[in-house]
Amino acid sequence: MTYAICNSKTFSSPTISPVCSYPNFQITPAMAMAMATAIKRSASAATRAISSATSSSILTRDLHASSGKKKIVGVFYKAHEYAKMNPNFLGCVENALGIRNWLESQGHEYVVTDDKEGPDCELEKHIPDAHVIITTPFHPGYITAERIKKAKNLQLLLTAGIGSDHVDLKAAADAGLTVAEVTGSNVVSVAEDELMRILILVRNFLPGYHQVISGDWNVAGIAYRAYDLEGKTVGTVGCGRIGRLLLQRLKPFGCNLLYHDRIKMDPELENQIGASFEEDLDTMLPKCDIVVINTPLTEKTKGLFDKERIAKLKKGVLIVNNARGAIMDTQAVADGCSSGHIGGYSGDVWYPQPAPKDHPWRYMPNQAMTPHISGTTIDAQLRYAAGVKDMLENYFKGEDFPAQHYIVKEGELASQYR
Amino acid sequence: MTYAICNSKTFSSPTISPVCSYPNFQITPAMAMAMATAIKRSASAATRAISSATSSSILTRDLHASSGKKKIVGVFYKAHEYAKMNPNFLGCVENALGIRNWLESQGHEYVVTDDKEGPDCELEKHIPDAHVIITTPFHPGYITAERIKKAKNLQLLLTAGIGSDHVDLKAAADAGLTVAEVTGSNVVSVAEDELMRILILVRNFLPGYHQVISGDWNVAGIAYRAYDLEGKTVGTVGCGRIGRLLLQRLKPFGCNLLYHDRIKMDPELENQIGASFEEDLDTMLPKCDIVVINTPLTEKTKGLFDKERIAKLKKGVLIVNNARGAIMDTQAVADGCSSGHIGGYSGDVWYPQPAPKDHPWRYMPNQAMTPHISGTTIDAQLRYAAGVKDMLENYFKGEDFPAQHYIVKEGELASQYR
Repeated sequence: MTYAICNSKTFSSPTISPVCSYPNFQITPAMAMAMATAIKRSASAATRAISSATSSSILTRDLHASSGKKKIVGVFYKAHEYAKMNPNFLGCVENALGIRNWLESQGHEYVVTDDKEGPDCELEKHIPDAHVIITTPFHPGYITAERIKKAKNLQLLLTAGIGSDHVDLKAAADAGLTVAEVTGSNVVSVAEDELMRILILVRNFLPGYHQVISGDWNVAGIAYRAYDLEGKTVGTVGCGRIGRLLLQRLKPFGCNLLYHDRIKMDPELENQIGASFEEDLDTMLPKCDIVVINTPLTEKTKGLFDKERIAKLKKGVLIVNNARGAIMDTQAVADGCSSGHIGGYSGDVWYPQPAPKDHPWRYMPNQAMTPHISGTTIDAQLRYAAGVKDMLENYFKGEDFPAQHYIVKEGELASQYR
Repeated sequence: MTYAICNSKTFSSPTISPVCSYPNFQITPAMAMAMATAIKRSASAATRAISSATSSSILTRDLHASSGKKKIVGVFYKAHEYAKMNPNFLGCVENALGIRNWLESQGHEYVVTDDKEGPDCELEKHIPDAHVIITTPFHPGYITAERIKKAKNLQLLLTAGIGSDHVDLKAAADAGLTVAEVTGSNVVSVAEDELMRILILVRNFLPGYHQVISGDWNVAGIAYRAYDLEGKTVGTVGCGRIGRLLLQRLKPFGCNLLYHDRIKMDPELENQIGASFEEDLDTMLPKCDIVVINTPLTEKTKGLFDKERIAKLKKGVLIVNNARGAIMDTQAVADGCSSGHIGGYSGDVWYPQPAPKDHPWRYMPNQAMTPHISGTTIDAQLRYAAGVKDMLENYFKGEDFPAQHYIVKEGELASQYR
């Protein structure tokens, strides 16, 4: 199993991680220290509140205290007839990460479902006595503050993949829960997918494909807005693991590569990747022919690309977003595509998910959208299924996880979610 | 203007060029020498025949003897309403490579048309007195032996782009014509497009896009056959300029890269690109998860991928072909896609072109086809329009072209077409 080469998402240190980026917002080490202290304080307060209300102590919800038989709940998408078509298709309800026999042979209970919405859903039914909930960003089981309150036995929330914004992380931290994801498991998958989408937009692939299936042949109708990627300016908003892997793959294309992040890369790595640091997001954006979003969804990045920011982008800009749909203002993107200010938009993330039938991104011109798929290739599934199994093994033994997997640990959020 | 870094398609030397590859067929330098001598002999014979029949000598058809006002005929695709949508859209009938004023101000006649088929077409009408014919691979004016016979004034055939198989090269050589193309003008364009197509097939993009536009959301229906490119084996059949540019772009993806060609690359370049040489095509092919065709269409590569050869490929193989449609057996490809033996097929080349409405590749499963577009991006058009202008300028002055542009010169074919 080969994980990503970058290794920046460590949780334990209060120094600044380069994983995500906030526009116009720089966190100094001193601020981070202050925030960490504040979070710890609020976590302790919450622990006291829980202790008095339920007579459980934080230890009963702490990873290291776990022992005995556990109830594990998995929320995945259903694969129906596709489940049997590929023995490595592990990330679905039917194949349940391939860990059922392993769990049940040790006496644990393992419930899996895709039914995750509303008060009468299957997930809701198992919340009160689940010890562990596993879910994915592709079909997220939303773990709200309300659900956390009901989950008296809950100790551990595992994301099979990357991106734990489906969990109310503050509520999880306050309740003393551990949240972890399989960091690195699908970063290559997402970076490859982003480069595919860049090429699809730059080269105007889809109008040509539409001509083929509708019996037409009109080269001019494609060529008048088809370009080479070579020589264009590509900027990534956020330059953590995925952003760096993308830049490395872009290097031989002969582009002008820019990146915005909270901190500058190590000069040697920056030189090797061949990208230039842009401290200020709004200074970088108008230079870009292609903008790629590689920042997690946080309170600070929600709606980051609103009408005003989109208006400042270069006319005809191409946007690729495999990060999270809610980083964009949905209607502003649709309007930008309709007016031609945005020349093309491609991504696999939506808000909400699954995208409703009337989601405007389904019908806007020059879109190259798919359902949330980039991080759930068969290769990625094998990696994140193995990563979840490893963490469960640690959990049963009362051992720590690899440090970079923690999103919430001992009441503290990983730096990219602070 | 930046041309490709590789520079292997030189005409003047009788040594072996690494531009194209023939399966199971190795031309030794001695054979190449013998062939060149034979071609020169036949060219001289043809010259004598023409001289006696028309009282013109080879000199009147030779590039270096040209002088005075010329009639230039351009065959391009029509762009209709798209012609005005982009000032750099030069490669269409309406914009005529952007050289009309320049030609006419010097007193030359410049006729352009898209009407190129049958005995009554516009091209046929201008054949008898044209001195120069310019055409493109995207909407090829087929210059047959019969047309060459009728073209009493013809001296020069220019391809705005790369690939001159629309010309009967032997007939052109026998008639003492010069054939040249803008070598390097769109190699980057085609290589980028190939990498896009590899990713579209490996990652199973199109079923996801279809779900979006039809109001569906079914991640499983995409994921069960979506993979990462990382770790897969990619083999290129032919490793000239385009093949090498593709391999360079593939390098950071962490694939196992193979190439088959008539000769092995310089060890330093091979090491830098990170690809392994496969001397025997049929030994390489069964190793490949993805096969990319990068060989010109010649008598030896026509129908190279027939039913038997396709049957020997790995089950589920993905094929990308931006070279020429006729390298494949059309029905064998369609049958392979239908049976699932071919897991996906993508390319922009067909036989014939434009592809008729009932061409089976339009309707076979798991195809990601477009009309012939990869080499006619706006960037490529700017380069090949400039390259054609430069060669016309040379021609008017009686100067030589850059050596690598020649396809037929003084009765001799460039090595990749021998």
